[in-house]
Amino acid sequence: MKILVLHGPNLNLLGRREPEIYGTRTLEEIDDSLRRLAGELGVTVETCQSNHEGVLIDRIHDAQARGVTGLIVNPGGLTHTSVALRDAIAGVALPCIEVHLSNIHAREEFRRHSLIAPVVIGQICGLGEEGYRLALRALAARLAEG
Amino acid sequence: MKILVLHGPNLNLLGRREPEIYGTRTLEEIDDSLRRLAGELGVTVETCQSNHEGVLIDRIHDAQARGVTGLIVNPGGLTHTSVALRDAIAGVALPCIEVHLSNIHAREEFRRHSLIAPVVIGQICGLGEEGYRLALRALAARLAEG
Amino acid sequence: MKILVLHGPNLNLLGRREPEIYGTRTLEEIDDSLRRLAGELGVTVETCQSNHEGVLIDRIHDAQARGVTGLIVNPGGLTHTSVALRDAIAGVALPCIEVHLSNIHAREEFRRHSLIAPVVIGQICGLGEEGYRLALRALAARLAEG
Amino acid sequence: MKILVLHGPNLNLLGRREPEIYGTRTLEEIDDSLRRLAGELGVTVETCQSNHEGVLIDRIHDAQARGVTGLIVNPGGLTHTSVALRDAIAGVALPCIEVHLSNIHAREEFRRHSLIAPVVIGQICGLGEEGYRLALRALAARLAEG
Amino acid sequence: MKILVLHGPNLNLLGRREPEIYGTRTLEEIDDSLRRLAGELGVTVETCQSNHEGVLIDRIHDAQARGVTGLIVNPGGLTHTSVALRDAIAGVALPCIEVHLSNIHAREEFRRHSLIAPVVIGQICGLGEEGYRLALRALAARLAEG
Amino acid sequence: MKILVLHGPNLNLLGRREPEIYGTRTLEEIDDSLRRLAGELGVTVETCQSNHEGVLIDRIHDAQARGVTGLIVNPGGLTHTSVALRDAIAGVALPCIEVHLSNIHAREEFRRHSLIAPVVIGQICGLGEEGYRLALRALAARLAEG
Amino acid sequence: MKILVLHGPNLNLLGRREPEIYGTRTLEEIDDSLRRLAGELGVTVETCQSNHEGVLIDRIHDAQARGVTGLIVNPGGLTHTSVALRDAIAGVALPCIEVHLSNIHAREEFRRHSLIAPVVIGQICGLGEEGYRLALRALAARLAEG
Amino acid sequence: MKILVLHGPNLNLLGRREPEIYGTRTLEEIDDSLRRLAGELGVTVETCQSNHEGVLIDRIHDAQARGVTGLIVNPGGLTHTSVALRDAIAGVALPCIEVHLSNIHAREEFRRHSLIAPVVIGQICGLGEEGYRLALRALAARLAEG
Amino acid sequence: MKILVLHGPNLNLLGRREPEIYGTRTLEEIDDSLRRLAGELGVTVETCQSNHEGVLIDRIHDAQARGVTGLIVNPGGLTHTSVALRDAIAGVALPCIEVHLSNIHAREEFRRHSLIAPVVIGQICGLGEEGYRLALRALAARLAEG
Amino acid sequence: MKILVLHGPNLNLLGRREPEIYGTRTLEEIDDSLRRLAGELGVTVETCQSNHEGVLIDRIHDAQARGVTGLIVNPGGLTHTSVALRDAIAGVALPCIEVHLSNIHAREEFRRHSLIAPVVIGQICGLGEEGYRLALRALAARLAEG
Amino acid sequence: MKILVLHGPNLNLLGRREPEIYGTRTLEEIDDSLRRLAGELGVTVETCQSNHEGVLIDRIHDAQARGVTGLIVNPGGLTHTSVALRDAIAGVALPCIEVHLSNIHAREEFRRHSLIAPVVIGQICGLGEEGYRLALRALAARLAEG
Amino acid sequence: MKILVLHGPNLNLLGRREPEIYGTRTLEEIDDSLRRLAGELGVTVETCQSNHEGVLIDRIHDAQARGVTGLIVNPGGLTHTSVALRDAIAGVALPCIEVHLSNIHAREEFRRHSLIAPVVIGQICGLGEEGYRLALRALAARLAEG
Repeated sequence: MKILVLHGPNLNLLGRREPEIYGTRTLEEIDDSLRRLAGELGVTVETCQSNHEGVLIDRIHDAQARGVTGLIVNPGGLTHTSVALRDAIAGVALPCIEVHLSNIHAREEFRRHSLIAPVVIGQICGLGEEGYRLALRALAARLAEG
Repeated sequence: MKILVLHGPNLNLLGRREPEIYGTRTLEEIDDSLRRLAGELGVTVETCQSNHEGVLIDRIHDAQARGVTGLIVNPGGLTHTSVALRDAIAGVALPCIEVHLSNIHAREEFRRHSLIAPVVIGQICGLGEEGYRLALRALAARLAEG
Repeated sequence: MKILVLHGPNLNLLGRREPEIYGTRTLEEIDDSLRRLAGELGVTVETCQSNHEGVLIDRIHDAQARGVTGLIVNPGGLTHTSVALRDAIAGVALPCIEVHLSNIHAREEFRRHSLIAPVVIGQICGLGEEGYRLALRALAARLAEG
Repeated sequence: MKILVLHGPNLNLLGRREPEIYGTRTLEEIDDSLRRLAGELGVTVETCQSNHEGVLIDRIHDAQARGVTGLIVNPGGLTHTSVALRDAIAGVALPCIEVHLSNIHAREEFRRHSLIAPVVIGQICGLGEEGYRLALRALAARLAEG
Repeated sequence: MKILVLHGPNLNLLGRREPEIYGTRTLEEIDDSLRRLAGELGVTVETCQSNHEGVLIDRIHDAQARGVTGLIVNPGGLTHTSVALRDAIAGVALPCIEVHLSNIHAREEFRRHSLIAPVVIGQICGLGEEGYRLALRALAARLAEG
Repeated sequence: MKILVLHGPNLNLLGRREPEIYGTRTLEEIDDSLRRLAGELGVTVETCQSNHEGVLIDRIHDAQARGVTGLIVNPGGLTHTSVALRDAIAGVALPCIEVHLSNIHAREEFRRHSLIAPVVIGQICGLGEEGYRLALRALAARLAEG
Repeated sequence: MKILVLHGPNLNLLGRREPEIYGTRTLEEIDDSLRRLAGELGVTVETCQSNHEGVLIDRIHDAQARGVTGLIVNPGGLTHTSVALRDAIAGVALPCIEVHLSNIHAREEFRRHSLIAPVVIGQICGLGEEGYRLALRALAARLAEG
Repeated sequence: MKILVLHGPNLNLLGRREPEIYGTRTLEEIDDSLRRLAGELGVTVETCQSNHEGVLIDRIHDAQARGVTGLIVNPGGLTHTSVALRDAIAGVALPCIEVHLSNIHAREEFRRHSLIAPVVIGQICGLGEEGYRLALRALAARLAEG
Repeated sequence: MKILVLHGPNLNLLGRREPEIYGTRTLEEIDDSLRRLAGELGVTVETCQSNHEGVLIDRIHDAQARGVTGLIVNPGGLTHTSVALRDAIAGVALPCIEVHLSNIHAREEFRRHSLIAPVVIGQICGLGEEGYRLALRALAARLAEG
Repeated sequence: MKILVLHGPNLNLLGRREPEIYGTRTLEEIDDSLRRLAGELGVTVETCQSNHEGVLIDRIHDAQARGVTGLIVNPGGLTHTSVALRDAIAGVALPCIEVHLSNIHAREEFRRHSLIAPVVIGQICGLGEEGYRLALRALAARLAEG
Repeated sequence: MKILVLHGPNLNLLGRREPEIYGTRTLEEIDDSLRRLAGELGVTVETCQSNHEGVLIDRIHDAQARGVTGLIVNPGGLTHTSVALRDAIAGVALPCIEVHLSNIHAREEFRRHSLIAPVVIGQICGLGEEGYRLALRALAARLAEG
Repeated sequence: MKILVLHGPNLNLLGRREPEIYGTRTLEEIDDSLRRLAGELGVTVETCQSNHEGVLIDRIHDAQARGVTGLIVNPGGLTHTSVALRDAIAGVALPCIEVHLSNIHAREEFRRHSLIAPVVIGQICGLGEEGYRLALRALAARLAEG
């Protein structure tokens, strides 16, 4: 079981900017933490961050060919604007969990609506870095069930 | 650390109705599973289900007096309609995680909007019974951090 | 065949207030009339009025256990606001007919939209007390057809 | 007492198309059934179907001259679009009941709003052919009361 | 100069129904009054009433062939719903004035919006039968100017 | 019978600006023309133009004291924005006709909605300077009828 | 003259939570203050707080039987969501004043709209505990006038 | 294979009005061109234009009885307003392609929404007379495939 | 302590127009009543009425220079339309209470929204002339508290 | 080349109120600064502040007569509400630049929409007092180009 | 004559995923088919697929330099979200036809609105792969006409 | 002080397309002009144009590392659609001014709303190439102030 974790635009800034809001953990540290948890759970994790919608879509398309069996996606700002990303996730038909670090429902009105949400299994938001780990647990459990 | 798990209207039907959709697990079994996980995590769990908005609000108000330090709430249909429940959660100022069994974003349009979401830490939806356990893990971790 | 007739909030005021609008018949008289018609149609009728959403939902949940095979519901003001009541009706999957005494389409704009309507068989409004009797006829006929 | 039953556009297709949805009863059979029930109730029934808005309006205008004392109207697709039909019903000031075979609240969003409803006594929907018969009962009872 | 006056659906009821609202003058009397004023103004008036959108459109199309040089239209309930009537008026490119007997802005919200208004020269509403005569004066004056 | 004609903001520019659109007639010439027609009709006309909402309202308030029995108002840009002007017209309860030189329905969307229209007898728009004269005729006729 | 003061959901938290916002006065102290002012004004005051919509409605229904001649209601979160509470107030037809402690117009957008307001005499908001006392003065004065 | 081509309101004006916009080709010439192409493709074409919604619906209902196996419809102004026409097309369940001569998306906002579109196979707009021929090719190809 | 009471457009009509609605008390009598109550409360009251938005704003700006320590404002029709008046109140940062004689929530839809409300302490509506006195009491009490 | 700089309602408060937000510079100092820059650029500047919409409109109307060749307008709160001011600017057809001291897009939602913007050359917002100077540079450059 | 065919995001998945919906034809086969038809029609076809908005825009910009005289664009999910793609098509001013494989009007609500449609000649949707070929025929015919 | 000037999609077409609208100046010439003005102001300017959202975001992220102290951004079509670009600007927390060549408020409705505007200091639109130079002046002045 191989799980692809995709981080959308601006998530590369984590840990280096506004640490009082987003904490001092970098994306690299989060990815490391996911790989360690993956080891415990007996699955493999691949990670990818890009500020380019097209790169994220290409990566999703290539996933099955590379043996990926599930997706965890934090679409960043594309959450609210990218039909193309939604169609990519729906198109490859891999089980996917959507993650947001912040509670998108407690911010600007336009952040409450996710174009991605209707094509994923479920969504976790507001739980910070822990949200990724919960998604990994849930996805691993689901894949294990077959 | 004591965590109160509140199940809103109609969740008492779980496992007894439409098992092909909601599975064959009853609410009692889910509550048992949460208590077992709580034991592993070193926290205590209290659970309560009610079809009465007022009962849920009373229970939230009484929480601190009974030593509760965190809330997990699946508001059921009240998610989209109860300002009073929202105000209760905001009023007691206990950390709270909102859980939905189904992916509310893939159902009727009116289910996408949660009145509760802006006053909780985070939200987990679409991951079934596992969603409660992930919420318990996240809340226990947060309470442990202080 | 046993049919449960549920009257929502404020319907207990019938006959005692604003008789020029709602007539001089009390809810008890309407319930009696329904029981008589039920006798003619060879079905049993149980009735219940409550101003508490939770009581109505509990009653719907208990219906099957008590042998109820169909519902007639006048949700009163909950028509426009209660997702929880809607979910209860949808959850027990008993055939249900929605009744309104007044023509909800000729009153305030917000009364035109019923949250309940999409999960019932049909709706009768504007025909006063007669609406309940028509609903009883229709439901008895449908249950007789199997 | 003479009651005019008007069937709007496409209702002539009944029984001949999509019988799995609309049943195998033709409009002629429904009209016959209404005439039989009218006999039992001691009233006369005239029926008319047209796909032409103007024909339906002309027929409503001519009603009083022909001794009609009440209307039952299933406006079909005109329900949602015809202010002219609404004005015709309001203009002749005959008591009118609106009937829909299907539950218009469980279909496309635009079908939930009826332009006709605010100018009729009441509305029955979702109860199939039985809905016409219930409307006939209710209208006959009301006319009998004077 | 020949002016075609078109009366839309339900205007044939004038004078015979609700005289306390619409007065006791019939459409025939209004048409006569217009013909008399036309005589004074040195123009010819043709009038037509129909409850059929298609008849009104056909009549507009035939207008030029019959020597009509201007239109006065009271579209009745079609005002708010008929793109086809709008396109007919725009298509023949004859100067047209829209008339409404009642003040459409002081009635139901949906009556405030006219689909016809953007393709006519001007609109007169709320001035009763006098509105037709004012429209005739204005149109005759405009046609006289060339 | 004395009629007050009020011209709102920017109407003092008439005839001096954009003559290709609004013609070469100044407001003074229009007012003269109205006074001449008033003479023919046996009524008196007072005119007033102001760019100040407050001046227009003061003038409406003073009208009855000065023997005014009817109003003709072209509110200019205040048409769409002034609840205060609306309340002034409604408050003095003098019969009032609203006039617009241009066809407000064929311009920007926000010009289609008049806050004034619901409190006047009727509205004339799109007929240029002639619109004022038609309003004067209609108002004089109505006042003559008592 | 007996006045019933109803406090909706969460108002029992007053004085015990967030004193920096809501002050240190408990609901009991506010009720005492109202009773003292009632004494000065020569009226009687009954108070009731509940987090249950149904309890509040029952209490309103029972009011007249217990000799109540006026209502003061702070509906809390039910302000924005409860058609049933609105119908209860409208149904008993007792003069009612709506009170809100905070300025609901300076908070979240959804708090600006009150379902209750159209069926009460008037509304006081933003004036804290003093708002109740002002409502009591106004209601006593009105009842005294008959 | 017989294909019915329906032209809605105002399309009879083609070629005779506004030739700078719609070209100099009459509807008769377009119909001739379609018959010639039909001959090349080995199918039969019937054409019908009407300004009457009811006539178009009647014609659609009669289609199957006359051996029609597919529809091409340019609903004209009815595109945006006729639920009845939509229901007729959906009711007969013949494959249908919607054609518009102009690019409806580059005109007034209300023209962008077609009530017909959700019940047809596909839509062609903005390609003028050629649009009909493309629709004929596509429909013939689809019918040939079975 | 000096309190400025501002009455917006049309309030000068009080007592002289529609006494069945607004009572027979003139604005002068209301102002006198406020001055008497002010004497009892140990504060000074200045009053001002204007139909000119600009005059009201100028008066608010001058307030502090003249020793004013609090505002009571009935903005009349400007309530719903004047951002400039809102900015003036917010700009001088004096405590302000908004008063409306009628229950603005039981009138036209557009009257429910106040642009002023978010920048004042609180709002009193529907309590007639008494509303001003309650506002004076509340403001005096607040100013006394410091 | 003479440029008229108009400051709308409440801008006279600049420098004297909320200096932490708007700075300590008074409107007089800003006007002086503009006059100095005008001298450098070889143009003349006239300035005017008013809280009265009518005064601003009168001033715009008089502009050309006084030799003004361009406008700089900060409409203050009238930005969002005054169609009359918009029409005045459009009516005189002088090149105009709109200036806002604050970033209107980062404040309340209703401040994002300017009624004035569609009739000016361009808009500068959020750059404080510097915004006026930039507008003066741009307008002088454009006038110099002819 | 050289025509550039652009396929937007996710169209590279054609034929390889969900063949029951989109058929078993790959994008390569569709492109081949277009090249063959181009040969018959005497035009040249270039094709390009990208999941990157920027790549598609760059390609449109470069088109004229490479001798392209017309565009066929299936924007995929960018249809509903990309103003930049719209501006690119409008900017190069080449005739363009928009193609969608599925009937976008029979899917999710948000797919009905195309940002691209107002800047193209016409749109073909719902006709599958045949839609591309029809677009090629129409564009070749138009280019041939000059 | 180093300022990064970012030009979004399609701005590379400047000067080469539609010169009657956008002028004959190329983007290179505009950039040169900015570099010359920067020299006068004693600051450094870097420029970048891309049609790729991701490239623009990457460039913003890299800015601080390369010593950039301020941003000038013309987001082109991304203005209205890119939450990701907004988040990038907000994330790096450099002072930023938004520039648009055309007056976006006088074009299509959707262009009036900028997703970027709430996270920048200010916005300049409608002033053509001069807008960039004004932004450079304003930003240099602000950076100089510290």
